[in-house]
Amino acid sequence: MTAIKTYIEENKDRFLDELFGLIRIPSISSIVAHKEDMYKAAEYWKKSLLEAGADRAEVYETKGNPVTYGEKIIDPTLPTVLIYAHMDVMPVDPIKLWDSPPFEPEIRNGKIWARGADDDKGQSFMHAKAFEYVVKNNLLNVNVKFMIEGEEEVGSPNLPKWCQDNKEMLQADIILVSDTGMIDPQTPTITTGLRGLSYWEVEVQGPNRDLHSGLFGGAVANPINVLAKMIASMTDENNRVTMPGFYDDVIEVSSEERELLGRAPFEIEDYKTAIGVKQLAGEKGYTTNERTGIRPSFDVCGIWGGYTDEGAKTVLPSKAFAKISTRLVPNQDNEKISVLFKEYFESIAPKSVKVTVTPLHGGQGYVCPIDLTAYQAAEKALIQIFGKRPIPVRSGGSIPIISAFEEILGIKSVLMGFGLESDAIHSPNENFPLEQFFNGIESLVAFYTHFAEMNK
Amino acid sequence: MTAIKTYIEENKDRFLDELFGLIRIPSISSIVAHKEDMYKAAEYWKKSLLEAGADRAEVYETKGNPVTYGEKIIDPTLPTVLIYAHMDVMPVDPIKLWDSPPFEPEIRNGKIWARGADDDKGQSFMHAKAFEYVVKNNLLNVNVKFMIEGEEEVGSPNLPKWCQDNKEMLQADIILVSDTGMIDPQTPTITTGLRGLSYWEVEVQGPNRDLHSGLFGGAVANPINVLAKMIASMTDENNRVTMPGFYDDVIEVSSEERELLGRAPFEIEDYKTAIGVKQLAGEKGYTTNERTGIRPSFDVCGIWGGYTDEGAKTVLPSKAFAKISTRLVPNQDNEKISVLFKEYFESIAPKSVKVTVTPLHGGQGYVCPIDLTAYQAAEKALIQIFGKRPIPVRSGGSIPIISAFEEILGIKSVLMGFGLESDAIHSPNENFPLEQFFNGIESLVAFYTHFAEMNK
Repeated sequence: MTAIKTYIEENKDRFLDELFGLIRIPSISSIVAHKEDMYKAAEYWKKSLLEAGADRAEVYETKGNPVTYGEKIIDPTLPTVLIYAHMDVMPVDPIKLWDSPPFEPEIRNGKIWARGADDDKGQSFMHAKAFEYVVKNNLLNVNVKFMIEGEEEVGSPNLPKWCQDNKEMLQADIILVSDTGMIDPQTPTITTGLRGLSYWEVEVQGPNRDLHSGLFGGAVANPINVLAKMIASMTDENNRVTMPGFYDDVIEVSSEERELLGRAPFEIEDYKTAIGVKQLAGEKGYTTNERTGIRPSFDVCGIWGGYTDEGAKTVLPSKAFAKISTRLVPNQDNEKISVLFKEYFESIAPKSVKVTVTPLHGGQGYVCPIDLTAYQAAEKALIQIFGKRPIPVRSGGSIPIISAFEEILGIKSVLMGFGLESDAIHSPNENFPLEQFFNGIESLVAFYTHFAEMNK
Repeated sequence: MTAIKTYIEENKDRFLDELFGLIRIPSISSIVAHKEDMYKAAEYWKKSLLEAGADRAEVYETKGNPVTYGEKIIDPTLPTVLIYAHMDVMPVDPIKLWDSPPFEPEIRNGKIWARGADDDKGQSFMHAKAFEYVVKNNLLNVNVKFMIEGEEEVGSPNLPKWCQDNKEMLQADIILVSDTGMIDPQTPTITTGLRGLSYWEVEVQGPNRDLHSGLFGGAVANPINVLAKMIASMTDENNRVTMPGFYDDVIEVSSEERELLGRAPFEIEDYKTAIGVKQLAGEKGYTTNERTGIRPSFDVCGIWGGYTDEGAKTVLPSKAFAKISTRLVPNQDNEKISVLFKEYFESIAPKSVKVTVTPLHGGQGYVCPIDLTAYQAAEKALIQIFGKRPIPVRSGGSIPIISAFEEILGIKSVLMGFGLESDAIHSPNENFPLEQFFNGIESLVAFYTHFAEMNK
């Protein structure tokens, strides 16, 4: 047994106790009522970093939720790794679909079940424990910085300014992030591309009050009917977005690269079975992985209006609402798309209603070159632990802050994630296999070694 | 001052106290938690009828909510008037839009403000008080029966059977109903046509759980996007319903009758201002009153799915739902339409989702001939009180039970209603002007006189 395996074996109950303490804080960033929990989570991280061996750790205020920063500088001439992670989590509704309470972590079938078990409390805590191991065993030969934010799930609105204000302190050679996934437990994966995001809330205002659908139905525009028509018109029969200009900045990926991407192991029947659908649907002319990896998407994330309670209330409602998002590919500018959609969607509203679009958040896409030293160190680390060369993939997800880091700090990020598709992040019954958690810690320890080695 | 005016003047505080007692019972039939309130309302009606002068009054059980029946038989050879009304009310959401609590009636600006102030507690209680007046003053020269049900707002599912079971007891020459409106406070109105109704809940099931909209968005059908497309496809650019067969049984109204209907006073600018819209919308080729009076409609009464809380949660939801209704014109069979829609809507679902349509309730349309004796008695009564001949109108609303009465009991109904458009029935801030309430009582007293006279 390797030293790190022994260390994990001897300390795993404590590791999990500590992680569970973090998970038990319901740090939902999108719900204002959880504001205090964000501070609890930030303090928890401060304590964790100091206990793991940081020279210093502090909770920094922002205009929004706090950021916990910690560091251990062993030699200013050595390379520096900046760990980025987030302490906030997604909301938990619909709560009734959870098999166990989301903020009371449980281990069942070798997995941790809780909101944040993977995204990103589980994954980020692997960094705390890998760091602890290299510090306690005098193996650390790079400088390490931690930046744990509390607004990732709402688009990191205040982190760019905080980075700008603390640019000096954050200087590093690479940002290392574990907030992505692996293709499967046997196939290590490094995410080399992320989609950008634009997100809006739209309001369709019809009559000034709910009307009787008998007395008025047929003569007054129903805002739900109108909203449905407007949403429907946004995509065509080939599932392409109809908004003029939407695809203007999309870079068509070469057929060679599409061929490479197509080599990633993928079983369409397993994929369909896992999510329980009989047929997939997406933009014509692209494979499933291409549709999420290299093509933008248009999804209604929420819709509501009128009577939604039990039984049959007849009403012609005053208003209807939707939360709409697009995932964008690198080179599509999220702010440009944000304005484009607002103007376009408001412009196509019939005169019988009033439509207001409010942009809620957004972020740029990102691409990581595979010849980067840190990428190659991550590759070596994953080969060492998983016995297999990791596959570089373009994820459909977004971490809006990653491209901001590049812009503000001038530092590239390596996305070395350990989540699995079955982890159900953002969904009820989020979970994280213990095996991934422990393998992740080992891989991160190996990364420190290889990265230091390659920088000698 | 006439005797009835004097009586109202002397008793109006008591009348309102009694009505408010009824209103304070939150008898919302569509919400199971209010089941007990339905019994309270039924007992309240029993007491009210006995106090007003009924020989007997009883609360009858049904498989659903109870029915209060009361009667005063002065001479079996005289004609009999059967009053039909309902004690149940609509839900009150969105509660925050109410200026005063919906079940705490208040008088402001000469109006009663409360859920049920008009529909139908205010209107039905005029009958109790008109009846009280004729009984206490020995003016009654017809037999009177009352049938007050508790499920009108959910489509009267159990009343047809109750009528069937009590056919003998319910024998009458005419059914008199006050559950409709007047064109304006100066223009008495008798509703001669009602639209039918079919109402469904639809469920669109996509993936078996909420998915991350980044990891899956673009590759998996989003049930909200699909539902929007399906709803959008149900009406065309002329606002006609596209479902095959939907218009098959619609009787085209003759151009002469359309001309007559067009004579009803109607100011399109006032109408638009009252409901706060800049432009009306409806089936091409028809006027606003035709669209609600003689043409069927297609309205989404409610829609929900995905994330609908504060902030920006990105999710590709598992399910989306809608409550959909059509208003039908006489001769369209609601059960036929109910089946037609279920089959059609399920058939147009793409294979990427599973769509389930559940019919919730329905009712047939109704037409009342204007040469009916009771219609003419109502006309005389309204002329006497309002000084103006009432206008016969076809309402867009539905009272599903009215056509059932004709079918089961063989009795026509006269719809002599006193509501105003500004009463906001089914909406927040429902109200009923005191003037309408008192004029209504006078009109109903006059009806008894004229109806008895004309049957001599």
